[in-house]
Amino acid sequence: MSVEVTLLQKYPLFSDLDETQLCSMAELFQSESFGSGYTIFEEGKPGATIFIVTDGEVEMLFAIGEEGEAKVDRIGIGGIIGCSALVRPYSYNATARCLTQVKVLTTDVSRLRRLFEQEPSMAVMFYEHLIQSLLDRIVNLRLESGK
Amino acid sequence: MSVEVTLLQKYPLFSDLDETQLCSMAELFQSESFGSGYTIFEEGKPGATIFIVTDGEVEMLFAIGEEGEAKVDRIGIGGIIGCSALVRPYSYNATARCLTQVKVLTTDVSRLRRLFEQEPSMAVMFYEHLIQSLLDRIVNLRLESGK
Repeated sequence: MSVEVTLLQKYPLFSDLDETQLCSMAELFQSESFGSGYTIFEEGKPGATIFIVTDGEVEMLFAIGEEGEAKVDRIGIGGIIGCSALVRPYSYNATARCLTQVKVLTTDVSRLRRLFEQEPSMAVMFYEHLIQSLLDRIVNLRLESGK
Repeated sequence: MSVEVTLLQKYPLFSDLDETQLCSMAELFQSESFGSGYTIFEEGKPGATIFIVTDGEVEMLFAIGEEGEAKVDRIGIGGIIGCSALVRPYSYNATARCLTQVKVLTTDVSRLRRLFEQEPSMAVMFYEHLIQSLLDRIVNLRLESGK
């Protein structure tokens, strides 16, 4: 398991890390591909893995009420999915399904957390970008609901 | 400027901090009150301060398109507002206006960031709770738009 450092450098999530930190991070990630229609993870299930979309598009399905009706966000290249696995209660808060063939960079949350414990300053940089991307998602959801 | 440690302990954002860390944090916060209708901060303005609502209710207004139409979230007790000031581009991404008389705990972002630089492990705990609360807000926005 490991990817090229240059692969990580394309994404804002890693843009504040220095060369050494990028190398430690690259060791934890791997590339994966999924076919169109594949369910990457399911809402409510324990979350062990996070994903950065590097190609294709993923829909996020979310059960609303007892009817199980599903509402949709679309996550494209550069989007981080499964990030609810990073925080309590460490489970996925939506279902992710591939709308196209999808490529991702993926890492095991427990290994990432171990690295973050050793180097909390890396966690800070990573989390600041994650917060930024969640705030953007909130703005987009507001724009969507205003349409 | 400073609040009682016991005041902070009521909120999940601080629940992982130990006694010493809570004391450092308490030194940075102060209590403030605003009247109903008061605008706490405005969308697009540089963000210097974040707020935790300790009493009352705040509406978040968000300009959509050129018409300046505004969409609304409501933030109640325990909600963190102004958190976009913590990350680039360090500005507010919505306007916060008091729906009732509102009490907050508030702190200067630059002082908070200085503390986080000295103690990155505190930043990690704080940010994990912030991420959790943003993920909850995304779930609520999805529920709202599904109504």
